[in-house]
Amino acid sequence: MLQTIFWSAGASRLGLSDRLGYSKSKTNSLVASLLDVGWLEEVGLAHSSGGRRPETVQLSASLGVLIGADLGATSLDVAVLRPDLTVLAQRSEPADVRAGPGVVMARVRVLMRELLSQCGATPAQVIAIGMGVPGPVDFDNGQPVNPPLMPHWDSFSIRDYLAEEYSAPVFVDNDVNLMALGEMWRLQRSLQNFLVIKVGTGIGCGIVCHGEVYRGANGSAGDVGHICVDTAGPRCHCGNLGCVEAMAAGPAIARLATEAAASGESALLANCLASKGAISPEDVGQASRHGDAAANRIIQDTGALIGQMLASVVNFFNPSHVFIGGGITRVGPLFLASVRQSIYQRSLALSTRHLEIQYTPLAEQAGLVGAGVLAMQETLKRASK
Amino acid sequence: MLQTIFWSAGASRLGLSDRLGYSKSKTNSLVASLLDVGWLEEVGLAHSSGGRRPETVQLSASLGVLIGADLGATSLDVAVLRPDLTVLAQRSEPADVRAGPGVVMARVRVLMRELLSQCGATPAQVIAIGMGVPGPVDFDNGQPVNPPLMPHWDSFSIRDYLAEEYSAPVFVDNDVNLMALGEMWRLQRSLQNFLVIKVGTGIGCGIVCHGEVYRGANGSAGDVGHICVDTAGPRCHCGNLGCVEAMAAGPAIARLATEAAASGESALLANCLASKGAISPEDVGQASRHGDAAANRIIQDTGALIGQMLASVVNFFNPSHVFIGGGITRVGPLFLASVRQSIYQRSLALSTRHLEIQYTPLAEQAGLVGAGVLAMQETLKRASK
Repeated sequence: MLQTIFWSAGASRLGLSDRLGYSKSKTNSLVASLLDVGWLEEVGLAHSSGGRRPETVQLSASLGVLIGADLGATSLDVAVLRPDLTVLAQRSEPADVRAGPGVVMARVRVLMRELLSQCGATPAQVIAIGMGVPGPVDFDNGQPVNPPLMPHWDSFSIRDYLAEEYSAPVFVDNDVNLMALGEMWRLQRSLQNFLVIKVGTGIGCGIVCHGEVYRGANGSAGDVGHICVDTAGPRCHCGNLGCVEAMAAGPAIARLATEAAASGESALLANCLASKGAISPEDVGQASRHGDAAANRIIQDTGALIGQMLASVVNFFNPSHVFIGGGITRVGPLFLASVRQSIYQRSLALSTRHLEIQYTPLAEQAGLVGAGVLAMQETLKRASK
Repeated sequence: MLQTIFWSAGASRLGLSDRLGYSKSKTNSLVASLLDVGWLEEVGLAHSSGGRRPETVQLSASLGVLIGADLGATSLDVAVLRPDLTVLAQRSEPADVRAGPGVVMARVRVLMRELLSQCGATPAQVIAIGMGVPGPVDFDNGQPVNPPLMPHWDSFSIRDYLAEEYSAPVFVDNDVNLMALGEMWRLQRSLQNFLVIKVGTGIGCGIVCHGEVYRGANGSAGDVGHICVDTAGPRCHCGNLGCVEAMAAGPAIARLATEAAASGESALLANCLASKGAISPEDVGQASRHGDAAANRIIQDTGALIGQMLASVVNFFNPSHVFIGGGITRVGPLFLASVRQSIYQRSLALSTRHLEIQYTPLAEQAGLVGAGVLAMQETLKRASK
């Protein structure tokens, strides 16, 4: 029942009876006892089609708080959340994951401490901590495994590090799996089979299969950045030729834009390079919105390559939805249009007949919400054992 | 309990207690009542490490028989099986699925009738029928959906057709999904996440995810034949360029061999073409075993393309095992070696660290066993409701 309430972001007693197939009296008495022990609290009034409006229950704020952390290759987001995933305090700042776990985790710890105190909470009130990192993770022991974008992090125990300050359990997962968990929660588990693609410094994919996040035989499922899209393409840091990550992720877009600036193809991009010293994918998006032809071409070409990779994945997996997130979303609608066009052109009609492709509705919050979901979900799983 | 006994191909009472977490007395009384009503029968003696040897129980032959049918693009296999999947009678013959459902299903019906009478069984004794077809299937209503290799079969109801003769329930699935079910049964559900690739006239993939066959949002999951392996490749019947099916499935191998025969590159293949009028992939395998350089090149090139496609799929799905089946297995070990080399070269280390790639252990029987598994599994699911 607690899981149902959590996943539906609060629920009425009537709704719970329906969903769990319990009688009204059984539901009422269960809810009453969970209110008694402080797991649940009553809040406001639920929407109703008429008659007496039923009261909603949700996970009680008296349980404590969750901490979520979402570490990207170049960004760090930390938040303190209520058990119902309301964000109480949040901080987002640039970070460089290549600085290694010592530097990065020290900063994570500082932010966690500051945010907790900002909410008037103590480490002892933390129910659980969820954290995402931009690489493959051994989910059971919470350690990154040979993460290509995270040198020095291989086998580093995030769990042990945080255990020095918190007695609460720590759960670590790949950042894209957390985005998938976040979207699952937003959707109240209404979709069984969908994908979340993150395009930033790298390219990764969170997979929801049979209504659960799928991590694969060794936890590396969704590692789509090294799918080949051009056998004659440039060499990737992984050693192979034509990986989609090497040709179409953030750094590739920046490189193509710098080339267009240097070659005189685009005055707008050249100005941007001169004034800022570097061109970001976001700058390319802005140039495109100002009608810059080179920027448009770069966005269309890289979108088409990502779409080509996704077409393979869609043929194989036949998801109902593909959500695209990460820094790339700031490039704008032309990128999404190019991805879509490429997928629809290359995938079989049956796989795409009802396929929806859109930017992640949770946007930049997806990973952080997912970190909170991970923390609360695993806590409820343990409590129900 | 019946499902456990079915999936473990018979079990001892002690084994059942362990597996189901029941007490010995609860297990004994459940088994006794299932023996009484005729669902189970006792058979022989199970292996034991010492002491009194426990008796094994299995699904009772008195329940009736199953019919399994495995329709490929160019082959038809039909069998009558006992509830424990022992084959009682089987027939395998060439078929042309393009002849349409009228012709093909009439032949299926004749074979079913002949095999039943060969076993001394009547249509009334049939518990359930399972059938695989070489294309996407709407699993709930048992109809092929826009199957590219099966013109005229779109929305044809195999279930209604067979209902004229059998009152038993009819279950229809994609042929590769059935191969996956067959391997699941052989492995007694010991693997949670693996793939079965069928390479014949087309290329398809059966997906086992979280221990269940995964069919996707529209039932077209595993449609890997149209994954692009060369953006400058030849045009496929689907309209796109460079689909792996157009470049490396059976017909492509035959075409490449015919070209090598015509160009004078291979005397062996030219002789084969002259004497038989056509070259099959099996002939190419035979020529390769006789040291023919052109045959070796063709096998290596097509194996590498299929490996390239599988590398994408392995990066995405991170399976523990990839089983390769279908007519291609008759080409021999060089093909498998080329596929392996290509996958290991193109996939990330983490995805392939423990990955096993082999020909399907059930070989040509995989689809037929899977048809039997489908029939029995769905029957047991209904019985347990």
